[in-house]
Amino acid sequence: MPVKPPAAAGMILAEVDTPALLIDLDAFARNLQRMADFAQRAGVRLRAHAKTHKSPDIAARQVALGAVGVCCQKVSEAEVMVAGGIGDVLVSNEVAGAGKLERLAALARQAKVGVCVDDADNVAELEAAAAKAGATLDVMVEIDVGGRRCGAAPGAPAAHIAELVAKAPHLAFAGLQAYHGAAQHVREAGDRRDLIARAVEHVEATRRALRAVGLEARIVSGAGTGTYENEAASGVYNELQCGSYIFMDADYARNKRADGSGFGDYEHALFVYATVMSAPAPERAVVDAGLKAFSVDSGLPLPWKLPGAQYQRPSDEHGVIDLANCQERVQRGDKVLLVPGHCDPTVNLHDWYVGVRGLGTDRARVECLWPVAARGAVF
Amino acid sequence: MPVKPPAAAGMILAEVDTPALLIDLDAFARNLQRMADFAQRAGVRLRAHAKTHKSPDIAARQVALGAVGVCCQKVSEAEVMVAGGIGDVLVSNEVAGAGKLERLAALARQAKVGVCVDDADNVAELEAAAAKAGATLDVMVEIDVGGRRCGAAPGAPAAHIAELVAKAPHLAFAGLQAYHGAAQHVREAGDRRDLIARAVEHVEATRRALRAVGLEARIVSGAGTGTYENEAASGVYNELQCGSYIFMDADYARNKRADGSGFGDYEHALFVYATVMSAPAPERAVVDAGLKAFSVDSGLPLPWKLPGAQYQRPSDEHGVIDLANCQERVQRGDKVLLVPGHCDPTVNLHDWYVGVRGLGTDRARVECLWPVAARGAVF
Repeated sequence: MPVKPPAAAGMILAEVDTPALLIDLDAFARNLQRMADFAQRAGVRLRAHAKTHKSPDIAARQVALGAVGVCCQKVSEAEVMVAGGIGDVLVSNEVAGAGKLERLAALARQAKVGVCVDDADNVAELEAAAAKAGATLDVMVEIDVGGRRCGAAPGAPAAHIAELVAKAPHLAFAGLQAYHGAAQHVREAGDRRDLIARAVEHVEATRRALRAVGLEARIVSGAGTGTYENEAASGVYNELQCGSYIFMDADYARNKRADGSGFGDYEHALFVYATVMSAPAPERAVVDAGLKAFSVDSGLPLPWKLPGAQYQRPSDEHGVIDLANCQERVQRGDKVLLVPGHCDPTVNLHDWYVGVRGLGTDRARVECLWPVAARGAVF
Repeated sequence: MPVKPPAAAGMILAEVDTPALLIDLDAFARNLQRMADFAQRAGVRLRAHAKTHKSPDIAARQVALGAVGVCCQKVSEAEVMVAGGIGDVLVSNEVAGAGKLERLAALARQAKVGVCVDDADNVAELEAAAAKAGATLDVMVEIDVGGRRCGAAPGAPAAHIAELVAKAPHLAFAGLQAYHGAAQHVREAGDRRDLIARAVEHVEATRRALRAVGLEARIVSGAGTGTYENEAASGVYNELQCGSYIFMDADYARNKRADGSGFGDYEHALFVYATVMSAPAPERAVVDAGLKAFSVDSGLPLPWKLPGAQYQRPSDEHGVIDLANCQERVQRGDKVLLVPGHCDPTVNLHDWYVGVRGLGTDRARVECLWPVAARGAVF
């Protein structure tokens, strides 16, 4: 049974049921514009990552501001984006398994669809699936630029796979996937810059190896919200895959800028709204949002505009807000805003975004409800 | 759009799409029976916790083996259980907010519905909602037995709230909620025993205070999979709220028994099934299950029957299985079983249980698909 939305358009904020996933529409719009402006100034393409939001409503806004399309991590996520009207989708991941390959190839009949590969046998599987569907797939060869996750070794091994792609009649060699996931949350700007500098060397080595076999990487794609300025300045990357910039979670905000200051170009625009269900002692408010309302993999949520308050001891459906060092009084029935530690897996827990206009003012109202349409699309 | 099941009944295991949430139906049946037998021998009621499984299919099996009903943590979860045919549901939590109170009271017209309270004003709210619905709610007064989460102070403060409940025309004072959540995952059996011994003292003090005002706690409810033997032996608790015993996750399995041995009465019966999507180096297999396929709040998942293999570095949709110390060969396209660190929030990420018969044999087949019907029911 589908989960009912926790709010309706027009409601005042205090009427929203909890826990709910809120978007501050004002901050969100500024974040969207900021990245769009950056990409335009830098002369690089933005292919925003839809794994963050899982929402064609949001993807359409990114495309309207100039993004060439979106990245997805999963075939099922890509299906939701195409069904939602997005015409250019890259599955920024390897796809394994006959059923998934078949669905991926079928999707390429409806939209421009790309996929990543790091293995020769996988190239043959992709070609077979695309041939059977009578479709053409764009293929990016993924190289390991230092993250030690997926990706072929840079240089000749990657170029060899690219050759196989280029020879396959139903595959088009589109370029290199060179995303450094492990660099994104490194705290010091200098360390992130150094990691991306090494990634650039790996890309350059691979481009030389490609040219030696007569191929050119038209697109070099990568970068996330933590490092995109480095990739954009490299002269090598020409497509950015940032996702979290739209929401800016608590963990990304712990990254530091080059001058040592906080990571403040983007604003917190995503919140979990929670109710104090029990306040058994003055220093303790128990809220109705726990491990099923946000992911704690990158740290606990931060109470918003409650200086000194600390969210502690998450359990499945509860969290304790320690008020010992907080001047504000918080009572049973009060509602609080929490900034999630990590936006992507938090979004995936919810069925609806509640878009709020005027958050932080006493005129805060629900303006829209957007389904998290690809929630649970993990296949 | 509802997420399609990753399997169909009759499939062989290897055909199941990934990531998928699997139940080993054989181990699961043994776990169900073991707890049912224990409760019967101990002469206590079992009110199994549905927050673990969120499935009326599973709840019905618990009731068929003697459970008096289920606990839920949320009103929306209780609604799913009642709609699924469960006739006796306790919301083992305080309920705050007009909308939720109204729905709770409406549910009490369809089934026997209980709720917890730890605040005098909340008693008045519950009475108003029940009166408006023309229903009667069973009310358990929650006491803080040491977990420092929700709950009134034991003794006279709790008895005072019970008096208010007893006087309310549409509320029935049903007993005490005395769950010690913080004790469940304490590793040493002696430490868990001591914590529950203190909880028992708090219950006894409260019962004395209740008798002093002419009330009796008919039911004393609490206990989880970590401590239930202690509560059952106390002579004070007469209802157990265990949930995780049906699945036995990796974190509960780290608890030790009184003789120092592992926590082996219950078997691992819940798994995330994952595919190796990339194997770029002999010691590294990247699987397609990450933070959106299981919760890591209580530790990383454990590769099952892959001695020496370690799941590491979870990202949103990936995990790396380190094979440096594993003798088995794992190749791209292989599928692996992972034991989740924490079952409850992991279940809440999935839309379907895939029930497998004969897991661990080469005859493993999908026998049933059960919806995680209350997935996302966090309100």
